[in-house]
Amino acid sequence: MTVAVVAYTVGMSRWKPDAQSRLAHAALELYGERGFEQTTVAEIAQRAGLTERTFFRHFADKREVLFGGANSLEEMLVCAVTSAPHSTAPIDAIAAALEAAAASVLFQQERHDYARQRQAIIATNTGLQERELIKLASLSAALAESLRQRGVREPAASLAAEAGIVVFRVAFERWVSDDNHVDLSHLIRDSLDELKAVIAGA
Amino acid sequence: MTVAVVAYTVGMSRWKPDAQSRLAHAALELYGERGFEQTTVAEIAQRAGLTERTFFRHFADKREVLFGGANSLEEMLVCAVTSAPHSTAPIDAIAAALEAAAASVLFQQERHDYARQRQAIIATNTGLQERELIKLASLSAALAESLRQRGVREPAASLAAEAGIVVFRVAFERWVSDDNHVDLSHLIRDSLDELKAVIAGA
Repeated sequence: MTVAVVAYTVGMSRWKPDAQSRLAHAALELYGERGFEQTTVAEIAQRAGLTERTFFRHFADKREVLFGGANSLEEMLVCAVTSAPHSTAPIDAIAAALEAAAASVLFQQERHDYARQRQAIIATNTGLQERELIKLASLSAALAESLRQRGVREPAASLAAEAGIVVFRVAFERWVSDDNHVDLSHLIRDSLDELKAVIAGA
Repeated sequence: MTVAVVAYTVGMSRWKPDAQSRLAHAALELYGERGFEQTTVAEIAQRAGLTERTFFRHFADKREVLFGGANSLEEMLVCAVTSAPHSTAPIDAIAAALEAAAASVLFQQERHDYARQRQAIIATNTGLQERELIKLASLSAALAESLRQRGVREPAASLAAEAGIVVFRVAFERWVSDDNHVDLSHLIRDSLDELKAVIAGA
């Protein structure tokens, strides 16, 4: 399965034309037109009407442009897990956090085309896939830590966090490849139900 | 959680002193002594008493030395899933495959020190962590494909495969950090039981 969950969250750019978003948008266009490898930082800056120096104030490298939303997503998820009622089971706290993120501005239907473009770019490049995977691993570690803060022991905390990331990846993949405009939060509930059935040996 | 599941499987080297194993063993020693970044291919070849040309006949680069066992592990797992009785539920076919691999020569107690050394090296380097994650993603994709070949539909196939990789990672992590010499196959069964409880909302 090719994933572009984290990468996707930078797509807010079109509607927020600050420097960072203009750079991210310009980069996505160029990666699509010429390929990721063939695009230089100088070209991205030029397309955005900015300087290379400005680019490097916002992004460490041209890979990182595609992952600008990772921190926002992580903060949103960790905050939701932390604020869940104390009696909530770990997997339910994770599921609620994922559904809240899915219902946020990051994953609305008008962002669907962005998600697809970004996913297509990531699918062409092993380095981008690796970056995506390590961002997801970091997200999983943050979720596990927020569960441990709630008193969940190991390995339950890591297992619930990892299961949540699996559910999110599968749901996101379906959302991106689907043309029927089903809400991502709906697909997350569906995927969690499927995972429950699968794990139970159905 | 830092993982080194795939990386680990190259540790057979000590007992099979062919060129590939000698190179892998020399690389592991040098990475431990000097650090991964500071070690060159020339030094690895010299330590193994071989030429750089021989190194590149066996490995694409110095990262890949740590992941030489990935293909064997994948073949072993796919073969076990494919040969499971047709009536076996997807998650049980995956679990049986993981337990079979865990009971193989790749993960015996005498390999424990190797696993720990390799994991420590991977933990120091983001590039190695990324490589490890993409190998695990490839393993998961191969397992999902072998389930689809058995007639398992999506997303059940991907969810069962991903859940299996999560269980394996958590169990492997416990195995490496544990000094009580518990069998990996035992830890896999434990982790799957824990995942079942977590997913059920326990």
